[in-house]
Amino acid sequence: MLEEWLHAHVERNSSRPLQHQLYRALRDAIVQRRLTAHQRLPSTRELSMQLSVARNTVTAAYEQLISEGYLYSRHGAGCFVSDAIAETMVESPPQRHKKTQRNTTAAPSKRAQSALAMAERLSPRRSAGAFVPATPDLRHFALNDWQRLVRQHERQAPWQWLDYARGAGLDVLKQSIAQHVHVARAVNCAPEQVIITASTQQSFDLCFRLLADAGDLLALEDPGYTGTHSAALACDLRCAPIPVDDEGLQVGAIPPATRLVYVTPSHQYPLGVVMSLARRQALLQRAQRDQFYILEDDYDSELRFSGRPLASLQGLDENDRVFYLGTFSKVFFPALRLAYVIVPPAWANSFTQLHDRFYSHGQLAVQSALAEFISSGKLASHIRRLRETYRERNDYLRELLTPLIAQGWTLLGGDAGLHFSVLAPQKIDDVGIAERAAKQHITLRPLSPLYWTRKKRYGFMLGYAAADKRELKHGVGILLALLQE
Amino acid sequence: MLEEWLHAHVERNSSRPLQHQLYRALRDAIVQRRLTAHQRLPSTRELSMQLSVARNTVTAAYEQLISEGYLYSRHGAGCFVSDAIAETMVESPPQRHKKTQRNTTAAPSKRAQSALAMAERLSPRRSAGAFVPATPDLRHFALNDWQRLVRQHERQAPWQWLDYARGAGLDVLKQSIAQHVHVARAVNCAPEQVIITASTQQSFDLCFRLLADAGDLLALEDPGYTGTHSAALACDLRCAPIPVDDEGLQVGAIPPATRLVYVTPSHQYPLGVVMSLARRQALLQRAQRDQFYILEDDYDSELRFSGRPLASLQGLDENDRVFYLGTFSKVFFPALRLAYVIVPPAWANSFTQLHDRFYSHGQLAVQSALAEFISSGKLASHIRRLRETYRERNDYLRELLTPLIAQGWTLLGGDAGLHFSVLAPQKIDDVGIAERAAKQHITLRPLSPLYWTRKKRYGFMLGYAAADKRELKHGVGILLALLQE
Repeated sequence: MLEEWLHAHVERNSSRPLQHQLYRALRDAIVQRRLTAHQRLPSTRELSMQLSVARNTVTAAYEQLISEGYLYSRHGAGCFVSDAIAETMVESPPQRHKKTQRNTTAAPSKRAQSALAMAERLSPRRSAGAFVPATPDLRHFALNDWQRLVRQHERQAPWQWLDYARGAGLDVLKQSIAQHVHVARAVNCAPEQVIITASTQQSFDLCFRLLADAGDLLALEDPGYTGTHSAALACDLRCAPIPVDDEGLQVGAIPPATRLVYVTPSHQYPLGVVMSLARRQALLQRAQRDQFYILEDDYDSELRFSGRPLASLQGLDENDRVFYLGTFSKVFFPALRLAYVIVPPAWANSFTQLHDRFYSHGQLAVQSALAEFISSGKLASHIRRLRETYRERNDYLRELLTPLIAQGWTLLGGDAGLHFSVLAPQKIDDVGIAERAAKQHITLRPLSPLYWTRKKRYGFMLGYAAADKRELKHGVGILLALLQE
Repeated sequence: MLEEWLHAHVERNSSRPLQHQLYRALRDAIVQRRLTAHQRLPSTRELSMQLSVARNTVTAAYEQLISEGYLYSRHGAGCFVSDAIAETMVESPPQRHKKTQRNTTAAPSKRAQSALAMAERLSPRRSAGAFVPATPDLRHFALNDWQRLVRQHERQAPWQWLDYARGAGLDVLKQSIAQHVHVARAVNCAPEQVIITASTQQSFDLCFRLLADAGDLLALEDPGYTGTHSAALACDLRCAPIPVDDEGLQVGAIPPATRLVYVTPSHQYPLGVVMSLARRQALLQRAQRDQFYILEDDYDSELRFSGRPLASLQGLDENDRVFYLGTFSKVFFPALRLAYVIVPPAWANSFTQLHDRFYSHGQLAVQSALAEFISSGKLASHIRRLRETYRERNDYLRELLTPLIAQGWTLLGGDAGLHFSVLAPQKIDDVGIAERAAKQHITLRPLSPLYWTRKKRYGFMLGYAAADKRELKHGVGILLALLQE
């Protein structure tokens, strides 16, 4: 059936390249549900023979579909239709009050389809428990103290704060952040370079729209954070996966015409590896030589348990190539909705203007309260307390995982942040295991779907910050049992 | 000098169309400050002779530059370089702490440049006083009562509300909004169709990315709201201006391949005209025939002083072509950061998913408080009070403007909203007058820059909601004096 569809939609004598025709025909078949989720596609060899096209053509079409999330590959087993597509692309309309069904063809734009396909690679979210990654301990946040501070600032707020906010954040908060990142992360900047955003997603959006045009190339870590990839697709960027090894991003693999490079050098997402100093310098040199910009996402590096952190790329940069992204979602809580980008001086003006035009999100009393929280030293002691709690949980989880390590598993990235990763000694069905764990209310984020076209590794991200010892123990019990099955 | 530059950059034998080359060469000259702000360009006739190209080619290049905000035209006087560009595009880097200047070439992407050029057409904002448009009375908002309600909801908030929010808004708020717009605006929807956003700008962004791909055509009102245009350019849409007359948007002028149409049918921005029922029906029919979607921005129509409002387009739509945009910025205050899009049923799923991926902005206690405010009937009585206050100010301002009307000026759109417009009987320098008024702390938004390439009209938007009687009187005094000069 697929063969007939492709014969009908791939025209050998058309002026459009065969590879593109094949890509489109397969994508349409997936979006229109002619192929079902997890259906195995013919091998590149089979399909190239069936269609009498070069095998390279088939491989290229498959790889594009993989990189856009329509297909996934399992090493040795071939290519499969992603289930994300089946759920996301084909609408199941909600209950209607008003009219009978007339138009059910609600096909999102191509860019939204690819962005959503990426988004759906994430498992459904839980807010706490083993092993929710990238989430702080929300159940024990001292919310009353914080709300009291916000109210004080609300009471002193001038009435103008009810209007649209201008200037990409309050000056006092910009000053506090500039000082904080200088001390904590060796970031050098003037307050004017700090652009306050609502979230790292918004920081991505600002950077992608201001620094790149549709079709420009973004190089991303492989494996990497799907949120970045998804935001880039929604901004019409092309994405190139760059392998990560034990020293971090392989700088040599960055393609020549790259416009932007996204990295998490302090605590690579998801693996947790730290980018070596040699790689940092190589990356900065390449950026200057090839005139690309670097987005340095330092999402959770303030929470470091051992070893001295390496200076941020921003601090090493002599040529204004680095945009430094930070967030308060990890040391405060995600619903605070405060993050920031630190931009090179010459960019401060255009970032501020675009921010004012599109976001101007305000919450100025919260910004003002946060500025006081930082400058009074409360943030530093809050981070110290968090570090103690999370270090204990990190230690405890490592201890619980001893049996796994004895079986040849590798623990990566345990020196900082809210999660570390465990890598299996051989290929395992990490996706299937995670699905079974979810049924027992345990969140395992499998690593293999975070890889793109390259050689995959198998295992899990394990978050420990949002789970207490009892929950961690219970979670490891379930993990070990599932692995034995 | 311009002639030499163009001779050097426009190649008659190139494969690239002359019109595009000319457009690029002129744009580069503007961005690189080879042309200064308000510099007059040669007429299309002069330039076509100098370069030996068809006059149509020059006209087309000029029109593109006008529509993107690089040039502006004054009727009869020719084309001029926009001053927005001089300030926005050529960076003046802020003070630096860290390094000496190395890289001052910080040229934003093309899409950001065009979006910013649009943005800068707006005058600097004041938050109150005569005649700040599109702004409610922030100085008299009952903030204490509101904050008390928010605190009650904060106290009852589950800890999960500290996490990333999912589902594009709280269900209770969606229900309240669905009821409210049904009663107030004859909008028919199920709660699931309501997507809660942080602002109308965010609603635009969602619609533009989900409903259109880069290069798709958006038809916009001419004159119209620059915020929509700017958001569209940042999403790589092409924009087509459609003239507005006394019945609203001229539906016949919508180009054939249009993907989206943006309208403000209840109170056209900026003119204030109400779209006639015949036009509404024609627009809905065209949408169904040509399969485009309509974005109906109903930004301030809840505040209606006289006459019965026409039903919303959404309420008339039988074919799921309308996306209805509303906001609480006008009846509450802009910093509340709550707006919404009501989408056709089949789109609810993809909108929710894209929203969760990119915004998930939360503020759930505020959402919960607002839901109670609406469902308890407090919003309805709040709007009734506002309507009384604004009606009085509207009446008073009309009275003050009697001398202007006697001189042949026309008042448009005074039946609803936060502003009306006054149109001069002949061409006046509305931009220059607004600049002089700004020096006396009076905000006049000139109408002529809100027109694109079409026949302009001259006059001002006059906001009356954010000014008390004393301020309105003072403002009219200054306006009349400036007009006599």
